[in-house]
Amino acid sequence: MPTYEAPLRDMRFILNDVLQIEKYANLPGFSDASPDLVDAILEEGAKMAQEVLFPLNQVGDKEGCTFKNGEVTTPPGFKEAYKTFIEAGWPALGGEPEYGGQGLPNVVGTCILEIMSSANMAFGMYPGLSHGAYSALIQHGSDEQKAKYLPKLVSGEWTGTMNLTEPHCGTDLGLMRTKAEPQEDGSFKITGTKIFISAGEHDLTDNILHLVLAKIVGGPEGIKGVSLFLVPKFLVNEDGSLGERNGVSCGSIEEKMGIHGNSTCVLNYDNAVGWLVGEEHKGMRAMFTMMNEARLNVGLQGLGQSEVSYQNAVTYAKDRLQGRSITGDKAPDLAADPIIVHPDVRRMLMDQKAFNEGARAFLLWTALQGDLSHKAGDEQTRQKADDYMGLLTPVIKGYLTDLGFLNSVNAQQVYGGHGYIAEWGMEQYVRDARISMIYEGANGVQALDLVGRKLMANGGRALFSFFADIDQFLTENEANADIKPYVDGLAQAKSDLKEATDWLMENGLSNLDNAGAASTDYLRLFGITGLAFLWAIMAKASKEKLSNGADDPRFYENKLATGKYFVDRMVPDAAAHLAKIKAGSDSMMALDAEAF
Amino acid sequence: MPTYEAPLRDMRFILNDVLQIEKYANLPGFSDASPDLVDAILEEGAKMAQEVLFPLNQVGDKEGCTFKNGEVTTPPGFKEAYKTFIEAGWPALGGEPEYGGQGLPNVVGTCILEIMSSANMAFGMYPGLSHGAYSALIQHGSDEQKAKYLPKLVSGEWTGTMNLTEPHCGTDLGLMRTKAEPQEDGSFKITGTKIFISAGEHDLTDNILHLVLAKIVGGPEGIKGVSLFLVPKFLVNEDGSLGERNGVSCGSIEEKMGIHGNSTCVLNYDNAVGWLVGEEHKGMRAMFTMMNEARLNVGLQGLGQSEVSYQNAVTYAKDRLQGRSITGDKAPDLAADPIIVHPDVRRMLMDQKAFNEGARAFLLWTALQGDLSHKAGDEQTRQKADDYMGLLTPVIKGYLTDLGFLNSVNAQQVYGGHGYIAEWGMEQYVRDARISMIYEGANGVQALDLVGRKLMANGGRALFSFFADIDQFLTENEANADIKPYVDGLAQAKSDLKEATDWLMENGLSNLDNAGAASTDYLRLFGITGLAFLWAIMAKASKEKLSNGADDPRFYENKLATGKYFVDRMVPDAAAHLAKIKAGSDSMMALDAEAF
Repeated sequence: MPTYEAPLRDMRFILNDVLQIEKYANLPGFSDASPDLVDAILEEGAKMAQEVLFPLNQVGDKEGCTFKNGEVTTPPGFKEAYKTFIEAGWPALGGEPEYGGQGLPNVVGTCILEIMSSANMAFGMYPGLSHGAYSALIQHGSDEQKAKYLPKLVSGEWTGTMNLTEPHCGTDLGLMRTKAEPQEDGSFKITGTKIFISAGEHDLTDNILHLVLAKIVGGPEGIKGVSLFLVPKFLVNEDGSLGERNGVSCGSIEEKMGIHGNSTCVLNYDNAVGWLVGEEHKGMRAMFTMMNEARLNVGLQGLGQSEVSYQNAVTYAKDRLQGRSITGDKAPDLAADPIIVHPDVRRMLMDQKAFNEGARAFLLWTALQGDLSHKAGDEQTRQKADDYMGLLTPVIKGYLTDLGFLNSVNAQQVYGGHGYIAEWGMEQYVRDARISMIYEGANGVQALDLVGRKLMANGGRALFSFFADIDQFLTENEANADIKPYVDGLAQAKSDLKEATDWLMENGLSNLDNAGAASTDYLRLFGITGLAFLWAIMAKASKEKLSNGADDPRFYENKLATGKYFVDRMVPDAAAHLAKIKAGSDSMMALDAEAF
Repeated sequence: MPTYEAPLRDMRFILNDVLQIEKYANLPGFSDASPDLVDAILEEGAKMAQEVLFPLNQVGDKEGCTFKNGEVTTPPGFKEAYKTFIEAGWPALGGEPEYGGQGLPNVVGTCILEIMSSANMAFGMYPGLSHGAYSALIQHGSDEQKAKYLPKLVSGEWTGTMNLTEPHCGTDLGLMRTKAEPQEDGSFKITGTKIFISAGEHDLTDNILHLVLAKIVGGPEGIKGVSLFLVPKFLVNEDGSLGERNGVSCGSIEEKMGIHGNSTCVLNYDNAVGWLVGEEHKGMRAMFTMMNEARLNVGLQGLGQSEVSYQNAVTYAKDRLQGRSITGDKAPDLAADPIIVHPDVRRMLMDQKAFNEGARAFLLWTALQGDLSHKAGDEQTRQKADDYMGLLTPVIKGYLTDLGFLNSVNAQQVYGGHGYIAEWGMEQYVRDARISMIYEGANGVQALDLVGRKLMANGGRALFSFFADIDQFLTENEANADIKPYVDGLAQAKSDLKEATDWLMENGLSNLDNAGAASTDYLRLFGITGLAFLWAIMAKASKEKLSNGADDPRFYENKLATGKYFVDRMVPDAAAHLAKIKAGSDSMMALDAEAF
């Protein structure tokens, strides 16, 4: 019963009018990404998501994965859908041509990922995890490893996983116990237990490539002794054919709140054969490559669930007749008005809409930085883009999933009692969205990463760039009466963020608890500022389109109205975050543990 | 694996030191409620909840209710637990002695309800719904009806239900189709379909008393033609024995997000015999009696889930070793520090703790108004208390469930990945808490009730009382340096609420959309102010206890620290709500329905 239509019009607006990706046609991959081709890709992606993946979303939730004798069966229809998905070449979209990929820009791939994530988040995680494994191998793997494994990941014939967590060790990977014993042939024997491994075992592909963190026996204590290994489910012969089964097996799958269509596995490694990826004891560096990408894609899941639940809330709000508008009947011929006439229903829908469109722009803007960090012609642009990726990854992961979840809750709320009933599908979005705040580093860990690591990295270079870019925009547009509300909103958010940053500099270093106590509010304040920046840019682009006689003026007028709502109703939270940050850590840390 | 211990120490503090209920010993029921007796009741209630109800909470969620051939089987253990529950006389706690009740104050019963709601929300709904039926009958039923039915409700031998919703009609009861045909013997034949009927069918008792809204054939159109009927599942003979099965049957039960242990029923009425309760066409008045009580008890469910999930988050945060404190190792002998040392974990726990304790005080303060509204000796006190009940019911329902849900989410977040796994029990609290924002009038409806009806009722009398009471407290304590932060916090929240009210008066009447657009933010701002008021009162009481050499100074010191956190970290949201309210409805209502 739920519906989903990929927001292609909005994506085109962002790619073409806001980011103006045709400006980058001189960069590798971008030259192939003509507006027509991108359009065609988006259309095809939307079709695949709407027709193949979305119809399996509720089935996947209801039936879930099943576990028997070490094997996992995915929900009915997933296997066929995966076949369709790889036959159409979707996993290859952003892969290097050298390994069979199409080499298209990350910013385009991000649009497809959002669409997949909206249509079927649990399904999207199977190829999603492969992408992380691909990134780790392409950046840290040996030439031999790349040649042997990457083509299979790019084609989607095999999937990948990330193995970090152990029962007693999540955020604190220094506590890791999984061990790797060096063998004479240069391989390692991996032994230990990993938990919460998404897509760790399934029936979609013949082989699975596990990227596993483990400690080489005799290496340094703690986090400095962690290395990254590649452990295929089936060993791969020289000719690429599958060899014998490796010593890794699935012990069980978790019964969990949501994403039932994706298997969350306990993986037992018992002298499994593994190969070092990258350098010994530098596993965290390689892992961060995977994790940073994974974190952006988790932020995207928050947006994806927010978007699909929003669309359904809109449908319901237009269909459901209940009560009369307080300003007079709007549908006098009907028994009651559709509930979209009620301001408080609007509030929920507008909260979602203003967030979704702002978050999409912010996410794609950041994804473009990812492209520039690799592909830009000059070192300065690459460095600045790389700085942005580092700075904004925790913001996108934390803010987009916190708000995305709340928006799914809001969308469910629009349905009243029906939102609580399984068949309507809304409660699934809430349950699925919930995990995005937790995995790939719980949002509190993102906040600490932002405040404790990213802010001051390289003397605060990334942050200063961000402020400078905003200031430049503000200066250039201060006299632009057309977009005054958006410029004012951005100025307000930025001023709050700047004040919070100054407070942190002054109080967070002398008392680190102040930094910790501020971290989540600081991350959210940063998120608001990021969205306010993109809303101001979008407002400017919309006004320009209108001045130039756009074909569909309504789209741009609606964009401006939605941005105004963001300024009116979402920017005010910035000041509350600032006030909380400036309250410091005293009352937060006052109680003894026994007093709780 | 989850744990729960009833917060008796906190309840005693509120009853004895904050509300000082011994002051009301001259009122009916209160004279029996000596501190010793209340203590004994709370102890026994806690024991029952902890030993009988709580162990069934996860079973109830996992097994759920089952439906077969029109019959509902409750989860394993529920039937035996219900027997234990009624044998101990719990349903009779607040009932009138005339009908077998103990006649104890509502404020004491509210403590027990919170405890039950924390221990097993789904179970608590069976007797909870009975209580609503009891209230409707005792206030609107005939003497004959009271004599025939009330003793069975008070003893818990039978349960009750509330039947409002139909498939096409939830908030807008004027659209109701269920009809009542008058019969010669004075009874009515009821025909129609009701949905979302909690505890509508079950195997806990021999009979169920359905309170049903229906339209008498030929009566006025819309809401003015709605009457309330009593429709027993089994007809009751003159001698009180059960007669034949009535024409009401359960068509199915809903598959839903949570509260699986409670049956949510479709009830089909097919010429069922019913009796009018109260006057013809005055059904809404009688229904509001039930609903107001039900709404307070739903607010209490929000608090209940927040409390139990908080307690478990605390346990986990003390047990789970992960990372080191940023201010230096706190448990150097262990592999890592317990995560309660981390400020961002504290933030989540303190948000919960400061809310729970403030909300409990606010709820009990309001419950006491309920007692005073019936029992106070002078008309003025009764009227003021009744005004408060009217004004604060939507605030408690809306604010306590919104925040209670978010706190359950926070508690789940403390667990990281384990919070998402069913066996830990945390995700159940989130799913169970979610319904409290929806049923008994979705929170948006509460906000409209507050802004559109309650604020200006009787010329704003209730609101002016509330402001006057706060102003009096502020004046009396402005020079009290001991509690300055709490007084300042209250003054700030109250000032924001006053400004919002003035804005509403000026802008909400001339443009009703402004009132609608402000409603939810206004309700939350009201909730913050209510909690700030009780926190200030609690701070004063705690300081006094400390000055007088209290036995357990730690309790009061911790109370003061927690209240300070509320002022530092939760009061700042008041200003954000005010800013959003003052943004008006323009950008919220700007878009055409097609633009969504």
